[in-house]
Amino acid sequence: MTFDELYDKIASGELNRQEAQRHFTLDWIQTARNYIADVNRGSRINIPEVIYGEYKSASQSVEIARALLERHPRVLVSRSPHNREIAAHFEAEYVIEETPNLLMIGEAPPSRGAVLIISAGAADHPVLAECALTLRCIGVKTIVFEDRGIAHPTRVLDAVKTGIENDVAAVIVVAGMEGALAPFVASLVPLPVIGVPTSVGYGFRAKEAALTSMLASCAPNLTVVNIDGGLRAAVVAGLIAKNR
Amino acid sequence: MTFDELYDKIASGELNRQEAQRHFTLDWIQTARNYIADVNRGSRINIPEVIYGEYKSASQSVEIARALLERHPRVLVSRSPHNREIAAHFEAEYVIEETPNLLMIGEAPPSRGAVLIISAGAADHPVLAECALTLRCIGVKTIVFEDRGIAHPTRVLDAVKTGIENDVAAVIVVAGMEGALAPFVASLVPLPVIGVPTSVGYGFRAKEAALTSMLASCAPNLTVVNIDGGLRAAVVAGLIAKNR
Amino acid sequence: MTFDELYDKIASGELNRQEAQRHFTLDWIQTARNYIADVNRGSRINIPEVIYGEYKSASQSVEIARALLERHPRVLVSRSPHNREIAAHFEAEYVIEETPNLLMIGEAPPSRGAVLIISAGAADHPVLAECALTLRCIGVKTIVFEDRGIAHPTRVLDAVKTGIENDVAAVIVVAGMEGALAPFVASLVPLPVIGVPTSVGYGFRAKEAALTSMLASCAPNLTVVNIDGGLRAAVVAGLIAKNR
Amino acid sequence: MTFDELYDKIASGELNRQEAQRHFTLDWIQTARNYIADVNRGSRINIPEVIYGEYKSASQSVEIARALLERHPRVLVSRSPHNREIAAHFEAEYVIEETPNLLMIGEAPPSRGAVLIISAGAADHPVLAECALTLRCIGVKTIVFEDRGIAHPTRVLDAVKTGIENDVAAVIVVAGMEGALAPFVASLVPLPVIGVPTSVGYGFRAKEAALTSMLASCAPNLTVVNIDGGLRAAVVAGLIAKNR
Amino acid sequence: MTFDELYDKIASGELNRQEAQRHFTLDWIQTARNYIADVNRGSRINIPEVIYGEYKSASQSVEIARALLERHPRVLVSRSPHNREIAAHFEAEYVIEETPNLLMIGEAPPSRGAVLIISAGAADHPVLAECALTLRCIGVKTIVFEDRGIAHPTRVLDAVKTGIENDVAAVIVVAGMEGALAPFVASLVPLPVIGVPTSVGYGFRAKEAALTSMLASCAPNLTVVNIDGGLRAAVVAGLIAKNR
Amino acid sequence: MTFDELYDKIASGELNRQEAQRHFTLDWIQTARNYIADVNRGSRINIPEVIYGEYKSASQSVEIARALLERHPRVLVSRSPHNREIAAHFEAEYVIEETPNLLMIGEAPPSRGAVLIISAGAADHPVLAECALTLRCIGVKTIVFEDRGIAHPTRVLDAVKTGIENDVAAVIVVAGMEGALAPFVASLVPLPVIGVPTSVGYGFRAKEAALTSMLASCAPNLTVVNIDGGLRAAVVAGLIAKNR
Amino acid sequence: MTFDELYDKIASGELNRQEAQRHFTLDWIQTARNYIADVNRGSRINIPEVIYGEYKSASQSVEIARALLERHPRVLVSRSPHNREIAAHFEAEYVIEETPNLLMIGEAPPSRGAVLIISAGAADHPVLAECALTLRCIGVKTIVFEDRGIAHPTRVLDAVKTGIENDVAAVIVVAGMEGALAPFVASLVPLPVIGVPTSVGYGFRAKEAALTSMLASCAPNLTVVNIDGGLRAAVVAGLIAKNR
Amino acid sequence: MTFDELYDKIASGELNRQEAQRHFTLDWIQTARNYIADVNRGSRINIPEVIYGEYKSASQSVEIARALLERHPRVLVSRSPHNREIAAHFEAEYVIEETPNLLMIGEAPPSRGAVLIISAGAADHPVLAECALTLRCIGVKTIVFEDRGIAHPTRVLDAVKTGIENDVAAVIVVAGMEGALAPFVASLVPLPVIGVPTSVGYGFRAKEAALTSMLASCAPNLTVVNIDGGLRAAVVAGLIAKNR
Repeated sequence: MTFDELYDKIASGELNRQEAQRHFTLDWIQTARNYIADVNRGSRINIPEVIYGEYKSASQSVEIARALLERHPRVLVSRSPHNREIAAHFEAEYVIEETPNLLMIGEAPPSRGAVLIISAGAADHPVLAECALTLRCIGVKTIVFEDRGIAHPTRVLDAVKTGIENDVAAVIVVAGMEGALAPFVASLVPLPVIGVPTSVGYGFRAKEAALTSMLASCAPNLTVVNIDGGLRAAVVAGLIAKNR
Repeated sequence: MTFDELYDKIASGELNRQEAQRHFTLDWIQTARNYIADVNRGSRINIPEVIYGEYKSASQSVEIARALLERHPRVLVSRSPHNREIAAHFEAEYVIEETPNLLMIGEAPPSRGAVLIISAGAADHPVLAECALTLRCIGVKTIVFEDRGIAHPTRVLDAVKTGIENDVAAVIVVAGMEGALAPFVASLVPLPVIGVPTSVGYGFRAKEAALTSMLASCAPNLTVVNIDGGLRAAVVAGLIAKNR
Repeated sequence: MTFDELYDKIASGELNRQEAQRHFTLDWIQTARNYIADVNRGSRINIPEVIYGEYKSASQSVEIARALLERHPRVLVSRSPHNREIAAHFEAEYVIEETPNLLMIGEAPPSRGAVLIISAGAADHPVLAECALTLRCIGVKTIVFEDRGIAHPTRVLDAVKTGIENDVAAVIVVAGMEGALAPFVASLVPLPVIGVPTSVGYGFRAKEAALTSMLASCAPNLTVVNIDGGLRAAVVAGLIAKNR
Repeated sequence: MTFDELYDKIASGELNRQEAQRHFTLDWIQTARNYIADVNRGSRINIPEVIYGEYKSASQSVEIARALLERHPRVLVSRSPHNREIAAHFEAEYVIEETPNLLMIGEAPPSRGAVLIISAGAADHPVLAECALTLRCIGVKTIVFEDRGIAHPTRVLDAVKTGIENDVAAVIVVAGMEGALAPFVASLVPLPVIGVPTSVGYGFRAKEAALTSMLASCAPNLTVVNIDGGLRAAVVAGLIAKNR
Repeated sequence: MTFDELYDKIASGELNRQEAQRHFTLDWIQTARNYIADVNRGSRINIPEVIYGEYKSASQSVEIARALLERHPRVLVSRSPHNREIAAHFEAEYVIEETPNLLMIGEAPPSRGAVLIISAGAADHPVLAECALTLRCIGVKTIVFEDRGIAHPTRVLDAVKTGIENDVAAVIVVAGMEGALAPFVASLVPLPVIGVPTSVGYGFRAKEAALTSMLASCAPNLTVVNIDGGLRAAVVAGLIAKNR
Repeated sequence: MTFDELYDKIASGELNRQEAQRHFTLDWIQTARNYIADVNRGSRINIPEVIYGEYKSASQSVEIARALLERHPRVLVSRSPHNREIAAHFEAEYVIEETPNLLMIGEAPPSRGAVLIISAGAADHPVLAECALTLRCIGVKTIVFEDRGIAHPTRVLDAVKTGIENDVAAVIVVAGMEGALAPFVASLVPLPVIGVPTSVGYGFRAKEAALTSMLASCAPNLTVVNIDGGLRAAVVAGLIAKNR
Repeated sequence: MTFDELYDKIASGELNRQEAQRHFTLDWIQTARNYIADVNRGSRINIPEVIYGEYKSASQSVEIARALLERHPRVLVSRSPHNREIAAHFEAEYVIEETPNLLMIGEAPPSRGAVLIISAGAADHPVLAECALTLRCIGVKTIVFEDRGIAHPTRVLDAVKTGIENDVAAVIVVAGMEGALAPFVASLVPLPVIGVPTSVGYGFRAKEAALTSMLASCAPNLTVVNIDGGLRAAVVAGLIAKNR
Repeated sequence: MTFDELYDKIASGELNRQEAQRHFTLDWIQTARNYIADVNRGSRINIPEVIYGEYKSASQSVEIARALLERHPRVLVSRSPHNREIAAHFEAEYVIEETPNLLMIGEAPPSRGAVLIISAGAADHPVLAECALTLRCIGVKTIVFEDRGIAHPTRVLDAVKTGIENDVAAVIVVAGMEGALAPFVASLVPLPVIGVPTSVGYGFRAKEAALTSMLASCAPNLTVVNIDGGLRAAVVAGLIAKNR
């Protein structure tokens, strides 16, 4: 029923108000529905398929992964407490890569472009590894330096230098505590820097200090993702690197 | 004095502990100082010169701007309460562009690349205008749509469509209140999206709701800057667009 | 271009990856756009047209109101600091009703159904008045009792009794400070209760105490809106009353 | 003793101040007590009997449930860590229905009216199931769609369409993370929408982001309950649906 | 209609469900209402009549005060921004006492008992004065020491000594900043101590530090009221002193 | 050395500045130390001896208790996770009373005065029991009513009535969630009311809602202690009751 | 009365319990009072006399200052909004030094030792000036560098180098926004560093970001004072420098 | 390549913009790198080598410790959950000292200077022990008093007196709950006081109350470190003591 038809039926009294309103709303929705083929969101926004595993049982994650693997060459499972169990279901058929926070089922694509990843301390490893594996999954090369806190400035400089020599398109800085590594690196490179504050720390606002500090920074080329949001930082960096 | 010389003098007792330590620290700093020519940070990281005007008097900002304009073709003054007064000092010599939060002194460079900027409501205008002027200053074209809240999805779709037709390299979403426009747009584009939460709203966590919501979003291609941080979003988007 | 055409052009190599992706996204958006007639959102979700006036100048609000009044019999302007000035533009042509937080331009429709509104103290008046005027604008009768704090339980009972005698469909409780009036009323009526916490109070969490308390309540028939969110409470209560 | 008698005894000096005050207060309370027959609160406010099981032992909950079942056909036990053990005591005599957060002892009544329940992700299941079972207990039909996040708009549209076709009286939206599903659904329906923010999420304000966002939303037909407050949302929706 | 009558009419089908429920609820309320004489709450709980003046105009406060003064010998107006104007209406007829936060209209009663009030700094004066005037209004003697911060322990000791020599029944400690005066005084006296944290201070949690500290104290004889809640502290201390 | 002597030695140059300052500070402290006999703090401030057991091992608590029992007839151990083990050391010699949060070693003294204790729900039991045992230890009679939430007002009235009939000197209200029981009871009695907010609840500010609400209340005769601070409320109520 | 005498009078029944307790407490206090000569607290803890001027009128501050100047050669008035007016009262007799937050009346003493003060931006000037003037008042030399943010590392190095060459005993770092300058400087010097977070910034936790970041830092030689707490940082640094 | 060479190549067009920018940035970094010999940060800032063990496995900490012990006589491992296991690897070769939060491998150096450490309660022991061991590792003598809360002022005075008699250079105060011990001690000594707020406490802001209170204190000679930050307080105090 078109809007015009609807209008006529209301004017002529064929439909009472409640019926007319329901028809109107349904038509609006039906129209949108018929024409939007949501076949392939993964392609549409060009990022890997991710299963958020935190609250799912192993078998729930396995089932969804199987369905996705029918249409996609690879799938990520994030924050699942059942990495080992899920991996066991696919090891015979697929290449598996695994970090504490992330599992990739399926082979990584060939890589284009490059992203530099620097972390402040060894405790930030799980988030750094999540960044790196996500970028592998997207098909972007990574150059990774761990444990390069602001207390050792020359070690930071080495890392940045290597990144620029490899012509990276963006830099990801993974840091907890006061998170000062992110503005320091941002002041050194003519590139977008994506800060990933981690929940590493103790005491006052232990889990939020790095986020607070990165948001408040006056470094103009620094953006931020959620605390421990390695996957998100990697997707953004990957989109920058691949479109370059 | 090299580290070796220092070492020898300590070993031979020529320097006592306090003297040696002071020498050691001074040498470390002196060495770094001599060799780092900090002449031209603007060029090094490739972003416009910005004067943070919030706590400065008009004359302080004018003085700094004058000094910078000797070496740079244009300068930004952000968050000054004295925009009009500052502009008056330069209008005879320079082109001036002005928004509530930002003042550009000097002519904009020719533009390369393009960025899409969408705001949720009319109240977000000052931040949106700050994004747009910053991008002009960097030399990046902008495509701007205002007042495209999530309540009118088709108006959002129009904006996104126009952006993609113009081959934008990144999208900036400026939104207050619950900030839901940012994840919605992020789900529509295969591009990095930079969310700028604004301080528009009332009631519970009025100024922080959009930031909270954007950080918590599961949209993987969405990064965030500080509340009302239009300049920073624009610099990041500009770096993406120009390097593409 | 249909998805099938797109697929063929990719398969045949006619479109490179970047072009194909842009086409794909544009097609998805174009399709949705063509078929969604967003003509009349006000009718679709059946609520009054509201102009959020907080950050708008008087002339901006006047201009938008004029445009809306061409298609709608009445318009609300909320939280404008320019009520008087806006009203002046329309007084010759329209009936005007005004409260501190809200302005209605145009005549109220005939009313169906009824809602009970109770406030805890005289300081809650602006929010209570906003509820009442919004309900008038929707076409719902209101029964209003002010200054009925929990310290005078019999005065609360009188108010509730009158409401039930008039067969109200829902109750709105407007209260600041510790907000205890809302769970107390909720325990007395077999109806949905909508709590509007107000920003009235002083000291610790002065503006948030009533919200905190209403959310934490164990009264099962109590929902909550944002602090000072009178309009929203009234719209929900109005939808309940009119659909009954 | 009436107030008049009290007055006389004070005037004549028969009672000293402390005694008189005690009498006065006692009389006030006694009067209220004698005349308020609190026999049947469950009937008075027309909602199911609920035992808050979170801090009770299995045997405490069983004992209270038994007492209530003497006067009521069914009872809910919410948030008990001892669901299985409690159920075991009643399985021989009663029909039992169970979700992670809620247990119903006794058969559901016949249903009238209908409510639509939509959740954003699989992780929201326990809260969604709590809503659905509560509505069964009240005697209202539910139409349930799970895992309909904002990232797949057409799947949201399908859910809303089905709800409206079935003439639901209200919509419950269960969502964690940024909670953007709630304002999106609210913008599509001419009905009261009750948002249930869940504690699903990670990082910054992980447990509160959805609540913050739903409260801050400008959708006028959206109210909110406490985080994970499924039962409360269901009771309100049930009251709307049954009174319609 | 009694509950029995109601029951019969339901059983016989004379009343349908909705009617019966309304009757039931109305009866419950009516019954309570008829028998509760709420004539004189001020006498019932034995505290002064207080007008909360913060959000009221001068004329609103004057009108309420006049009405109350017909039945009460004195009235308090708290937190009014119109103290001077209100006082002007009553000066011809009544004795007026005034502090920045509080206005008493009417003569103070004769005093019984005594309370010690100590403040930490001169900036706490308005809250201290509010305590003292409220106690005058209740009819309790006060012993007042100002500006006795923890930095001068002997001055604190003098104040406490004088209080005990005068046999005070309770101590009120008014303090901002870190509020350490309250636990220190509490450790010196065998009496109930009521801490009034003030909003005096600057920097981190400037307005809440004293409240936080007083709540966290391990002093067992210390209770707390809201920030700047002088009136409340005085009422509690007054009840203790008068009942002693 | 007196201050005068010190002064002379400085004036004559006998002491250099650093020596003089050290002497001066030492003298100040020495003087105070010699004359303050800190023998018997328990008597001085008239409250029971309490061992804070939360972070102590069983044997640490036992050792301290033994030492105190040499001089005191009874001792309290609060928040120890080792209640059973500690009790075992003293059962042969002493009467033991025990609640989840508190252990009394030694016989309760004879009681004087009375305090009314009311809790909102069964989940508040541990805090209520802590209040009651502390008052036994002080030698004050308690009248206790559990599970009297605001949803059943007549049950609250019964409790208050019994308390007043027994001439209690103060009322303690123990409540979690929205804590509305405290202002309700405060509005019914001409007595000091001490609110003990508990950490019972879920969702938004689950552990702090009752505290927030009690602090924000406008009931003038209500003071508050820390969350779950039963012992402190009881000590204050006990001091009021015994001094009456 | 000594403790022994008291004991005897209790044992013989000469004093009842209440009297004895009051005597006991009074004696304890009297004893302490007699022997603590609080004549000269300024000398005792060796810091300048400070009048906290924030809530005082000009005349109140003037009066206190006059009294102090009778016994002290100089006085500080901090955070007074009446600097000019206060200064006017003393200019004839005393040397005056003035910064936005602080006023010194009286001549500075000769200086010993040195402290390095570095600020991140021009907006931090008032706090930096407060540090410097306080140190002058204590008699410590200052070496001051302004506007040395982390974005220009070589300028930071210059400042640190000069400080060490002058053999400073401590470093004060004054910084707002993300406060990263403090850990950076701390990593460069073998000295105590005192961070003064300022309230300069905007957006998320604008006033608290630097404090959060400095507390969370892993730099082991960094301590922190309250936000904008320049005076306190200077006193600590001064004590270090003078005792060296 | 020098900056001049770079300039020429740009001017002559030999390098395009992207290449030139990369060179420029690389040169800047390379220059700094070549000349900064970061051999010996431990010596440079004169503090012990610390391994942050919280997120490391035993073997990771062991490996790093071994490497450091090749160049340093002693190493600290902080906050490791594997103290015992790590100690076992080194016991044969090194002296080990251990507290709950800290492990020292290697013999303490001879001590110079002295620091006074006072804690408020037995529950603060782990943090106090961390302070003491860190100072041993730095080579500073400690004078330690535990369990000296403000409730026993004479015991505090004893501790302070002993400290001053031993000519300590600084005082560390370790306190949880309301943290009032820190400003009290600060008011007694002419020395820098470093407050270490601990996470000991319960109820409202249980873990943050002492920090809030210490920051808000008006004691001018008090600085603060992070919650439970014993190591940091000790390093600062140690630097003060050794440089004296």
